[in-house]
Amino acid sequence: MFKTKYVYMFNEGNAKMRELLGGKGANLCEMTKMGLPVPYGFIVTTTACLEYNKQNGELDDKIKNQIYNSIAKLEKKTGKKFGDDRNPLLLSVRSGARVSMPGMMDTILNLGLNDISVETLANKTNNRRFAYDSYRKFVQMYGEVVMGIDNSEFEKLIDKKKKAVKIEKDSEFTSEDLQELIADFKTLYKKRIGEEFPTSAHVQLINAVCAVFRSWQNPRAVVYRKINNIPSDWGTAVNIQTMVFGNMGETSGTGVAFTRNPNTGAKEIYGDYLPNAQGEDLVAGIRTPMPISELKEQNPVIFKQFVDVCRLLERRFKDMQDMEFTVENGKLYILQTRNGKRTGVASLQIATDMVKEKIVNEKQALMMILPSHLENALHPTFDPKELEKYAPIAVGTPASPGCATGVIALTNQKILDNKENGKDSILIRFETSADDIEGMHASNGVVTVRGGKTSHAAVVARGMGIPCITGCSSIEIDEKKKTVDIGDFTLREGDIVSIDATTGKVYKEKLNIRKDIVSDNFKTVLSWCDKYSTIKVMANADTQKDVHTAKIFGADGVGLCRTEHMFFEESRIKAIREMIVADNEISRERALKKILPMQKRDFVNIYKEVGDMPVTIRLLDPPLHEFLPKTELEKEELVKSVNGLTLEKLNEIMNGLKEFNPMLGFRGCRLAVAYPSIAKMQTRAILEARIEAEEKYGVKPNVEIMIPLITGKRECKFVKNIIQTEANEVLQKYGKEIDYKIGTMIEVPRACLVADEIAEEMEFFSFGTNDLTQMSYGLSRDDSTKFLKTYLENGLMEQDPFETIDIKGVGALMKVAIEKGRSVNKDLKIGICGEHGGEPNSVKLCQELGLNYVSCSPYRVAIAKLAGAQASIRK
Amino acid sequence: MFKTKYVYMFNEGNAKMRELLGGKGANLCEMTKMGLPVPYGFIVTTTACLEYNKQNGELDDKIKNQIYNSIAKLEKKTGKKFGDDRNPLLLSVRSGARVSMPGMMDTILNLGLNDISVETLANKTNNRRFAYDSYRKFVQMYGEVVMGIDNSEFEKLIDKKKKAVKIEKDSEFTSEDLQELIADFKTLYKKRIGEEFPTSAHVQLINAVCAVFRSWQNPRAVVYRKINNIPSDWGTAVNIQTMVFGNMGETSGTGVAFTRNPNTGAKEIYGDYLPNAQGEDLVAGIRTPMPISELKEQNPVIFKQFVDVCRLLERRFKDMQDMEFTVENGKLYILQTRNGKRTGVASLQIATDMVKEKIVNEKQALMMILPSHLENALHPTFDPKELEKYAPIAVGTPASPGCATGVIALTNQKILDNKENGKDSILIRFETSADDIEGMHASNGVVTVRGGKTSHAAVVARGMGIPCITGCSSIEIDEKKKTVDIGDFTLREGDIVSIDATTGKVYKEKLNIRKDIVSDNFKTVLSWCDKYSTIKVMANADTQKDVHTAKIFGADGVGLCRTEHMFFEESRIKAIREMIVADNEISRERALKKILPMQKRDFVNIYKEVGDMPVTIRLLDPPLHEFLPKTELEKEELVKSVNGLTLEKLNEIMNGLKEFNPMLGFRGCRLAVAYPSIAKMQTRAILEARIEAEEKYGVKPNVEIMIPLITGKRECKFVKNIIQTEANEVLQKYGKEIDYKIGTMIEVPRACLVADEIAEEMEFFSFGTNDLTQMSYGLSRDDSTKFLKTYLENGLMEQDPFETIDIKGVGALMKVAIEKGRSVNKDLKIGICGEHGGEPNSVKLCQELGLNYVSCSPYRVAIAKLAGAQASIRK
Repeated sequence: MFKTKYVYMFNEGNAKMRELLGGKGANLCEMTKMGLPVPYGFIVTTTACLEYNKQNGELDDKIKNQIYNSIAKLEKKTGKKFGDDRNPLLLSVRSGARVSMPGMMDTILNLGLNDISVETLANKTNNRRFAYDSYRKFVQMYGEVVMGIDNSEFEKLIDKKKKAVKIEKDSEFTSEDLQELIADFKTLYKKRIGEEFPTSAHVQLINAVCAVFRSWQNPRAVVYRKINNIPSDWGTAVNIQTMVFGNMGETSGTGVAFTRNPNTGAKEIYGDYLPNAQGEDLVAGIRTPMPISELKEQNPVIFKQFVDVCRLLERRFKDMQDMEFTVENGKLYILQTRNGKRTGVASLQIATDMVKEKIVNEKQALMMILPSHLENALHPTFDPKELEKYAPIAVGTPASPGCATGVIALTNQKILDNKENGKDSILIRFETSADDIEGMHASNGVVTVRGGKTSHAAVVARGMGIPCITGCSSIEIDEKKKTVDIGDFTLREGDIVSIDATTGKVYKEKLNIRKDIVSDNFKTVLSWCDKYSTIKVMANADTQKDVHTAKIFGADGVGLCRTEHMFFEESRIKAIREMIVADNEISRERALKKILPMQKRDFVNIYKEVGDMPVTIRLLDPPLHEFLPKTELEKEELVKSVNGLTLEKLNEIMNGLKEFNPMLGFRGCRLAVAYPSIAKMQTRAILEARIEAEEKYGVKPNVEIMIPLITGKRECKFVKNIIQTEANEVLQKYGKEIDYKIGTMIEVPRACLVADEIAEEMEFFSFGTNDLTQMSYGLSRDDSTKFLKTYLENGLMEQDPFETIDIKGVGALMKVAIEKGRSVNKDLKIGICGEHGGEPNSVKLCQELGLNYVSCSPYRVAIAKLAGAQASIRK
Repeated sequence: MFKTKYVYMFNEGNAKMRELLGGKGANLCEMTKMGLPVPYGFIVTTTACLEYNKQNGELDDKIKNQIYNSIAKLEKKTGKKFGDDRNPLLLSVRSGARVSMPGMMDTILNLGLNDISVETLANKTNNRRFAYDSYRKFVQMYGEVVMGIDNSEFEKLIDKKKKAVKIEKDSEFTSEDLQELIADFKTLYKKRIGEEFPTSAHVQLINAVCAVFRSWQNPRAVVYRKINNIPSDWGTAVNIQTMVFGNMGETSGTGVAFTRNPNTGAKEIYGDYLPNAQGEDLVAGIRTPMPISELKEQNPVIFKQFVDVCRLLERRFKDMQDMEFTVENGKLYILQTRNGKRTGVASLQIATDMVKEKIVNEKQALMMILPSHLENALHPTFDPKELEKYAPIAVGTPASPGCATGVIALTNQKILDNKENGKDSILIRFETSADDIEGMHASNGVVTVRGGKTSHAAVVARGMGIPCITGCSSIEIDEKKKTVDIGDFTLREGDIVSIDATTGKVYKEKLNIRKDIVSDNFKTVLSWCDKYSTIKVMANADTQKDVHTAKIFGADGVGLCRTEHMFFEESRIKAIREMIVADNEISRERALKKILPMQKRDFVNIYKEVGDMPVTIRLLDPPLHEFLPKTELEKEELVKSVNGLTLEKLNEIMNGLKEFNPMLGFRGCRLAVAYPSIAKMQTRAILEARIEAEEKYGVKPNVEIMIPLITGKRECKFVKNIIQTEANEVLQKYGKEIDYKIGTMIEVPRACLVADEIAEEMEFFSFGTNDLTQMSYGLSRDDSTKFLKTYLENGLMEQDPFETIDIKGVGALMKVAIEKGRSVNKDLKIGICGEHGGEPNSVKLCQELGLNYVSCSPYRVAIAKLAGAQASIRK
């Protein structure tokens, strides 16, 4: 029978064996293979971990035997002996899963020591204190990490000892103090565990390996896996490595370094070095390390050696590296290397530099960049030094990233006034609604008391690229007094605040903003995306300004232009209201005639900016009651301005339009069916504007008219007929031939199921995954914040379906719709618009499903492009 | 090449050829084949109709030729000659589609006449007046029906003539008057059509045939087909038959008769006979016909002959027949036979009698009964004579059938007071809500101003079996004055009204009710259903009374017991409110403890009635805000009764529970996830009641606990765990082993798509097609009345999806769920609960999809049983 290999010596593996050896182990093997100075060792595989857990926590003898054999090989290589009193081989034991994971067991150092071998170590190093401190550390780590004794119990003993010998710092302990402390530790150990501290190195090692395996199942690791979609059957490996000591004197030391600057991306070694210290001294931060650049002067030989290693590793791993190293008695050892974390700006710099340096090609460079990097590189941030100075006074949900400062404004009017006076405002409200669009647009940032990442404020703010914090529940607004209580402070309207919506924090000081603009690197990366992506990225843009922004980020056109946002403006809403209260087609058309020139003007401006790209315009979608007067004053005004309208009748109309579930009510194409004149007016505006834009500005955008909320073929035909009839009239009147398309949103589950029939009538599909998610899950976005949190925290949903497309539900419906749609028309253009269109995992799904484009808010265009390119390359 | 046969002589077809020959034609053939006295003729097929329409209204020569050949055969058979002046063959031309359809061309009689042959007819019959009146009729019918001249133009000429000759009745015209009138008709014809009235019999015939074919496409027929789901590619046939004349003197006559009494089902010939008349004289109602039974005395030979024909036809067509016949000079001719329409009571009588008479077997008898027959046989109706006496004062939508009288009540309290005083009430409200359940339950009938067939009042009333009229928009309620304006009348609370909710009519008089009870025939039919149906029928029953009713109608158990309806009672709602406002688990559990014994008592009572059948109990489903106080008074009461609660805090809680789209909000299993103690209490009540019911009453119902609104597997597991843990505790405490099941509603589209995962956790599925329809269509039942009507009227939907399951959308999702669910557990029990469960077409779909049961309101159980049995037999 084939004998499973559970243990690999470092020279038996390589970087590609992450699944079996874990990330850390695979890289240690790779470095060993490269001939780099890595302390020798071996790896117990992830398979052994799974085996261990399958056996309910018994480590099989065949695994144990392979470990013992590997120890023998290590002994041969080092000339030392594991468990020997006079020439002991000391080891470190570390966990190492396929990806780095919090909650897993970390590190045990100095394994192999006991009461006798510690003396040998003391004599050999001629440093009793070092030897006993090493032993103390080992006993403590083993007791805590392997056997689960609470670390505070050890710390209490240390404190007691300090008081007894009247010292303040650990470093003041003499070797005798430490020796006594170790004895105390062992007494504690026996009390808690019920047996003596193990003196056998082999017992210590096997127990340590089992502890690592067990830690794969500890609650924090389980939760982390759930949240990050890491399968529980990956398991973790164990890395067992010969100890080296950075704390053996001034020719020793330890360091952590990046091969490039992780903040700026500059090509320079970046990191810290601490002479005469071990790794955890650096982490503990008791002594201040020196910048690694100083090592160049202190020890040019080691430094040059280190720089060479950095360059070699970058070429081998094809990415910027984050390394741990130790110098023992003037000899350099590399303990670990991995791809380094970096800021957005650095990420772009490194990617473009590495292409220039021919370390990676463009595709590889694209795969190095995280979507969050692009996002990060775009949003204004506060100066990091300022953030250290001030404490936030409230923390909410980071709903739309970015930073802003301004004076508090509690009403939309206040914001508009401030704007006129050249003042920046932060809008603070209990929650926002469609009425607030204008105010939000004029504000620099938004904070709401209620809501989550998908509440109205969040969605609109992200669409506008305005920073927004939602669910800031510690805020209390007093509308009458015009004050805001935030934590212990009472602020007034007009007081300054700063908000960091990337972290969700609110400050009462004015913080300085560092705004990064679209850099050359950014543009380079976008050009690569266009080169390798098979999916286009359009923008959701309702104004000329939106289109302008979208173009900066490389949008391939406008995938969704919502006509209703144009309706909320002061001058227009009156005409809309007249249209709604009209009791016959003639008055309705009269009101619509007032709106026509305004809509037309909007479209001309948008087309001018769109140029010759496609632009998809959606017919009026929201329920009519959203446009109705909200205050008694507005009602009176409306009554006055409409002939024959009484307050009583208006109230009746308003009551009639009230809905129990507006999401499932009188909206979308249902409006066009009930009031064809609205669809007619919009069609006319769309096409007349197209003619005018071409005449005035020479642009020829590809106009696509999109029908919302379609549920079946007959509805399609009916509305299409309204559009075509009106369009023919317009084109005939102007004697023009313009190629326009008519398509539909697919945003109702039924539409997916009858997509073949719909495709017979429509020229394109655009998935409205927001509504599709709400209806598939029976989950209202606005109402779900209350309970969705409980669901996500308890892992009752794999992810927030409003953030990432739910593959099993919504994704399955999309698949059906695509297959059915293309079965009728194989060239059917299919896209997606809405929030998911700018979310990387969802873009990946869209690419895999074969969509032609995604459409998202202008500020998400670049991120979607990157996600699309990465999915295309991966495929 | 194969030559298509477009024309069939009567002896060439049979009853099975409805598709090709139409219903009427096929039956004429069958009767001819049986040797019955049918005036000979032939049929132009439906295929010819389709051909004609494909050729854009040109009748192909090959069809024409086949018609001419058939005429020759007729001539040979009758010894007369078509178009001949001296021995003319006269024909009738009638349309005849596969099913009878309004809007189609009806009849042309006496075709073949012209100015010369009319004289021959006059001489032969020795009756000039008869001959010229026949000719006058033909010219008028041809002008109107074939050529499309407005009939009023002919009628004007008739009126003019009457004035000229100073008579009042048509029958007073002399043959000379008629001759002049015919001349006037022909002048009119020429003016309108531009050519002379055709004298050629062949031209007349071909034009008549074409007119029938064209009438297939006329708007009224098209709309009727759309509404009744009749494919437009069926086409119509044309029946061409030798004329016989019932108006040739006293030994002639015409009649219409049923082979059994269509009102009672009694085995007696039932119908009218009019001596010396043609068919349309009977229809026109100018002369009063005699009951056909009198023919027995007048002409016993003909009568006996006719009775024999009836019995023969019944045995041949295996159903009660509705016939037209003519006696020409003492000779009986059968002109038409078809299955007769009948009342519900008659339908059951005929079905059971025909089985006894061995005319049909039980399966065939079941197929004869329409679901509406059963319904009709169950609902109380007003005495038909009373209905003739009084005029309705308002008409609304018939939302829940039945009749009722009572005094007007505008509030629930009023109804309860009336009930205490032994008075019957009719609840009249603008619309109803969950609050009104108690009042509705105590009322005899409900009328609402707003709403349609699927509004709250309609659904609840149907569930309760209470008559209900909705959308009675001519009613105005003045709550303060306690008056109701209906049409021209102002009624006060306490005034008597009668409502006929089967027709939607409201009367201001007290009408007498004739209540039919469940008859022996009804029981016999139900027993056949049980014998042949493969699908069980359960009832939606929330109370002991509901269960009792359901059992009368043969329910196989309780498929849905909604626990929330029990919560609305005065004494309980207080505890529920305390539970909702509880700010910690302890106070919540305290409130729930108050409810526990009440719920338990409810369940014991239900179980007692259920006996050993299954009973499916659904955990709390509606959004909590439905239970909250509605008035300030109720709020104050609540504040007083709960320790530490302030009005401010209550308002805050109530605001927090407000939802934009409650349908998609915090309800269903989301309640159990957020407040496990509710699910625990209910589980305890369900199982403790089970134990008590067995001990006290010896019943052993199969208890099934159903979780609402499940969207995925993890949610299932979570709630299942809550239920199981509590259940184990209860069973251990009482030392009992009870086999209970845990299952889920499938009412969210996503649940269908992940049904395989859900089936791993759940023991049964029950489709909630109400919500599934709302979510699949994005269509709120409560809000859709406004625009759904427009959709249905314009044919934008094939049918009202809340009435009949939408096969393409909801049906497709159900299919996916069933396939996925059974792929994991092939014995998975699957059913449906909700409104569709009692609708015959939906039951048919459920049977075809392989569901184990449907569950519907108690009053629909019998109808569902019939539909299920019919679908099973059909399969």
